[in-house]
Amino acid sequence: MPAAALAGMSLTLINGSPADTIPADDRGLAYGDGIFRTLAARAGKVILWRRHYEKLSADCRSLSIVPPLESLLQDDLRWILQRMPDCAIRITVTRGSGGRGYALPGDVIPRRIVAASPIPEYPADHAKHGVKVRYCEQRLALQPRLAGIKHLNRLENVLARAEWHDPSIAEGLLLDVDGRVIEGTRCNLFLVEKGVLVTPDLSRCGVSGVTRDAVIGLAARQAIPCRVEPVSCERLQAADAIFLVNSLIGVWPVAALEGRTWHDFEMAVRVQKWLHALADAPA
Amino acid sequence: MPAAALAGMSLTLINGSPADTIPADDRGLAYGDGIFRTLAARAGKVILWRRHYEKLSADCRSLSIVPPLESLLQDDLRWILQRMPDCAIRITVTRGSGGRGYALPGDVIPRRIVAASPIPEYPADHAKHGVKVRYCEQRLALQPRLAGIKHLNRLENVLARAEWHDPSIAEGLLLDVDGRVIEGTRCNLFLVEKGVLVTPDLSRCGVSGVTRDAVIGLAARQAIPCRVEPVSCERLQAADAIFLVNSLIGVWPVAALEGRTWHDFEMAVRVQKWLHALADAPA
Repeated sequence: MPAAALAGMSLTLINGSPADTIPADDRGLAYGDGIFRTLAARAGKVILWRRHYEKLSADCRSLSIVPPLESLLQDDLRWILQRMPDCAIRITVTRGSGGRGYALPGDVIPRRIVAASPIPEYPADHAKHGVKVRYCEQRLALQPRLAGIKHLNRLENVLARAEWHDPSIAEGLLLDVDGRVIEGTRCNLFLVEKGVLVTPDLSRCGVSGVTRDAVIGLAARQAIPCRVEPVSCERLQAADAIFLVNSLIGVWPVAALEGRTWHDFEMAVRVQKWLHALADAPA
Repeated sequence: MPAAALAGMSLTLINGSPADTIPADDRGLAYGDGIFRTLAARAGKVILWRRHYEKLSADCRSLSIVPPLESLLQDDLRWILQRMPDCAIRITVTRGSGGRGYALPGDVIPRRIVAASPIPEYPADHAKHGVKVRYCEQRLALQPRLAGIKHLNRLENVLARAEWHDPSIAEGLLLDVDGRVIEGTRCNLFLVEKGVLVTPDLSRCGVSGVTRDAVIGLAARQAIPCRVEPVSCERLQAADAIFLVNSLIGVWPVAALEGRTWHDFEMAVRVQKWLHALADAPA
């Protein structure tokens, strides 16, 4: 179905009520003062909900925003999933409305926005035969205070994604200002080195995703070593395999980057299976 | 008048029409994908309008957002100033509504939000006898691609401003991650060193304000040397005088910072007079 035909199918709840607008004085708009998550639901079930809720709460607390109660979000999700059992869901929590200026208003009430849209239809090929990726020119600034948090200050990602229009390139990789490889514009990254998993350290910048955390935990259960380390471009190019993860794409092996190609997708396929099993497990 | 009583007095135009809400799919909310300006109007006239419009346009272009026509914004301002001749005005320009994900939708139309509120009533003392300021713990990340732009990714400022509650402290100073002094949370900064003006270099981070630009230009006209240079804390503490500038506060001399006090406000008072004369000049 073309995107235009689907556009009318989006559903949005704001603080639990169907609505298409937010107050113009919301601090999410004014300053990017809030956080968000993107999650997938299939057959009426949100994938990895507990992990998403825990990360959402942790991100809120990092900004001193009181997280919404899980029961409220679950009510929102129930309402949405009754109408759209398979969908991509974005949950945004902003500081709320209030005041002119950066100072936090004393009586500010956080605002939650739960919006569903059809799951993007990625080529099935991506998960099986891998994707072509590129390096972005846009670098990530080092800000340890905000590193890992999925906050609403995402201009770096917007600028990075605007760098290419070639539809054969599925993702762009972001380096930090020191030239270290951090992540994709919308996903996290794993390397395979002699059977060991490596994922870039996100303590200075980047977004720590729920799927990345899940893969780290699953590797431990499978007794596959997984290291969180700084990754240079040289190291990335020398890896035996690379794959990308996020809540919507799942796992995409990387088939090509800057002239280098990869053909061994065995670990990526294993991780896909782990994640499917985890998604199917009772909550 | 207490803030609560004034809250109802705000006026907002969205794309030229009175409105209090914006579509929930605005990319300003989703990613901080946009820019803003804060300006002062007195007796129905916007102070330094031409400079604000030029900076707003330049900031939009830095993010590949088509700036709103000056005539449209002037229509908005006329409507607002007929109702509130003395006010603080925030102009926000977002990328507009569109799409899920970071990629720019092809057909996105920028959204302009012009919101007026009463000018904050700062103690008159601040401009005459100076203010007490502090250093913030929160550091500014180095991001040359976004440095100088007044974009909507302002979590660093929000976090910095949340560090203190002591109302006797009028502003917090922000250092970058390398420890260089950059600006206040909501203003720019000048030092006086043996009759020479110095303002921190903003090529790696910080917001380049219209009042700062005006002061640099006015200093040149008065044949007072003004240098844009890196500023260390040691250099700041050793300055003969410091003052803060922005569109709403005008010029505030700094009277106290970390145990050091200043009493010579002569240059700050001169700059106040230059700016008053400039504001009164025909546009």
